[in-house]
Amino acid sequence: MERCDALGGISEEPDLLVRPYGSGAMRRVNEIVADWMQTAGMSVRRDAVGNLIGRYEAREGDGGTLVLGSHLDTVRDAGRYDGPLGVLVALACVERLNDRGERLPFAVEVAAFADEEGLRFGTTFLGSSVFAGTFEPGLLDLVDGDGVTVAEAVRSFGGDPGALAGGRPPDGLIGYCEVHIEQGPVLEELGLPVGVVTAIQGQSRAGVGFVGEAGHAGTVPMKGRRDALCAAAEFVLAAEETARGEDGAVATVGRIEVHPGAPNVIPGEASLTLDLRHADDAVRERALGALRERAEGIARARGVRSRWEVRQESRAVPTDEGLSATLARAVEETGLPAHRLASGAGHDAAEIAAVAPVAMLFVRCEGGVSHNPAESVGEEDVAVAIEAMGRFLELLAAERG
Amino acid sequence: MERCDALGGISEEPDLLVRPYGSGAMRRVNEIVADWMQTAGMSVRRDAVGNLIGRYEAREGDGGTLVLGSHLDTVRDAGRYDGPLGVLVALACVERLNDRGERLPFAVEVAAFADEEGLRFGTTFLGSSVFAGTFEPGLLDLVDGDGVTVAEAVRSFGGDPGALAGGRPPDGLIGYCEVHIEQGPVLEELGLPVGVVTAIQGQSRAGVGFVGEAGHAGTVPMKGRRDALCAAAEFVLAAEETARGEDGAVATVGRIEVHPGAPNVIPGEASLTLDLRHADDAVRERALGALRERAEGIARARGVRSRWEVRQESRAVPTDEGLSATLARAVEETGLPAHRLASGAGHDAAEIAAVAPVAMLFVRCEGGVSHNPAESVGEEDVAVAIEAMGRFLELLAAERG
Repeated sequence: MERCDALGGISEEPDLLVRPYGSGAMRRVNEIVADWMQTAGMSVRRDAVGNLIGRYEAREGDGGTLVLGSHLDTVRDAGRYDGPLGVLVALACVERLNDRGERLPFAVEVAAFADEEGLRFGTTFLGSSVFAGTFEPGLLDLVDGDGVTVAEAVRSFGGDPGALAGGRPPDGLIGYCEVHIEQGPVLEELGLPVGVVTAIQGQSRAGVGFVGEAGHAGTVPMKGRRDALCAAAEFVLAAEETARGEDGAVATVGRIEVHPGAPNVIPGEASLTLDLRHADDAVRERALGALRERAEGIARARGVRSRWEVRQESRAVPTDEGLSATLARAVEETGLPAHRLASGAGHDAAEIAAVAPVAMLFVRCEGGVSHNPAESVGEEDVAVAIEAMGRFLELLAAERG
Repeated sequence: MERCDALGGISEEPDLLVRPYGSGAMRRVNEIVADWMQTAGMSVRRDAVGNLIGRYEAREGDGGTLVLGSHLDTVRDAGRYDGPLGVLVALACVERLNDRGERLPFAVEVAAFADEEGLRFGTTFLGSSVFAGTFEPGLLDLVDGDGVTVAEAVRSFGGDPGALAGGRPPDGLIGYCEVHIEQGPVLEELGLPVGVVTAIQGQSRAGVGFVGEAGHAGTVPMKGRRDALCAAAEFVLAAEETARGEDGAVATVGRIEVHPGAPNVIPGEASLTLDLRHADDAVRERALGALRERAEGIARARGVRSRWEVRQESRAVPTDEGLSATLARAVEETGLPAHRLASGAGHDAAEIAAVAPVAMLFVRCEGGVSHNPAESVGEEDVAVAIEAMGRFLELLAAERG
């Protein structure tokens, strides 16, 4: 916790926490964490994008590598736990092994990814994609707000842009396990400090529009109206109702705009965004189809036209059943139930799932708040997470004895 | 109709019709109309604000004055009929009297008001309020987009700012009758060229807000949400339902905004405008109270807070029963039913109603469109309006003979 506070003070701006990829703050944080890694008996390396990786060698021979970790970059005006907590819990687990002089049948690497949030270039998982060997070379030409390309930023951060696409995961990669704050209220409501993630939810983003007819708010009688906002309002409630009717689904209309947008003019056009998520792609696709039909039905009934444009679809990423079962046993050994829950947000684990089994442990956070300086995690909960991760390593070691 | 076209070509901008108070276009239009008035046997005067008034004297003695008219200013990108039609129909009626050498027992004045729309200073009825003697001196300090005050604009338009508040209606004012396009679809749907106005509707404008809790669109389950937009959507539909349930009521949510307004964030705040109108103040007030309760009920059920701020209330202005009955008889004498309807928009008649009996005749307009270059009126309908107004003058003359 002290370490989270220490890293939380290292920012590009004096009064708020912001630590984008390649920044001076990122560089200082990497130096500090590298120091802690070495003190914990790890050898430290930096890869081509500037991910910091500490390696704690196996007892002997080639038992493969287990990777623990998360990211050290932040959003703007961030909290202190989203990212760093996962790195520092992993570090604490290795420290405990090192303090006891204990080695496992496999090596443990602690990965501190240099860019997960995508604050600087608008693309997420830059760090973990290089680690996993899934980096897309087309991203090298992206520019930040100052016109600096990814390639230039990587170079000035001491990396090698030409080698990004050539990254590959450690040989004999057993799996990846990430600790992260939940960023939601579920564990808090259940009164549980930690939970085991079943999947990172799939997501659909759509733009939905209704086109009716603008008119004078005083002179057009109700029955002749084709009010685009009334159609949109019905859709907002339909989205809510549909998500409530599918266990585990969430649907959000986060943005709505009407034209012409004057108090005394009947809206002729309304457009809104739909964000729909579920851990099961089939459920999400069914709900999305149902909502599209609802939009068309609402439009038909009101004599307006509807527009529907799917802007983004990402499939759900299930965590590995075997690795998650071991993680759940580890939680149970601390005396707590191993509550399973889906992740509504994306994480580095989703990127690494392309090349290795992944598992995730969520830590309760106060009020479900994240991406905000009010982000808060209990000290006892972090102790439970460290304890559970320690037992997870023991169980894996026993399995692979 | 030719005259409407001629005036419609006189604008401050080459490709669209815009004729604000005090503009060069307004000055030219006044000169042309003054010319037509004189040709029709009227004496012409300009009052302190620049309203143009033509007077056609009575047969003899002091039979009082009947005023007909409307306004010559326009909104931006206006149509050709909103305003000028009423002035030109009045002019045509006097022309017919003059052509026949006929005088009435009362004088007829044709008033062409210089500012009804309020385009330049954001305040409506500037012209007719000076004519009626109801001008508020506080308005002299209002400024237009260039920082010019009302006082300066009046002076440079050849008027006398010091005399605005001292205006008074003609001695022995019998009444005011205004012809105007309907600006709504009612007459078109009924297949009628003209209709007799019962009242200018009262109007309430309110700002309504809902404050819930913002949150991550992926991580906050549906059941824990306090989504401000969902509350607002319920209110939009409640406003529609309430207005549909009160004969003659119209309710419009013309503007809606949500915060923070990102596609992946649950809206924490939503604010919207409500515009509610009815010809009967008691009905409007009852509906407004019911909607306020609906807002509070919606908020309570969703665990959000509601805000309610009435920003403007104007009382309904009923037209004069006697004068309107005479106007209705005149319409019936043309062989048409005299359909009665309320006006959803404001008109100079509402201002003059403070000092004299008023009546209004609406003329059907295509698709109910107004404040738009597509504004369109049928030539036959204008002929009906002139005929009805001519008979109205005859009936009044007979009553007062």
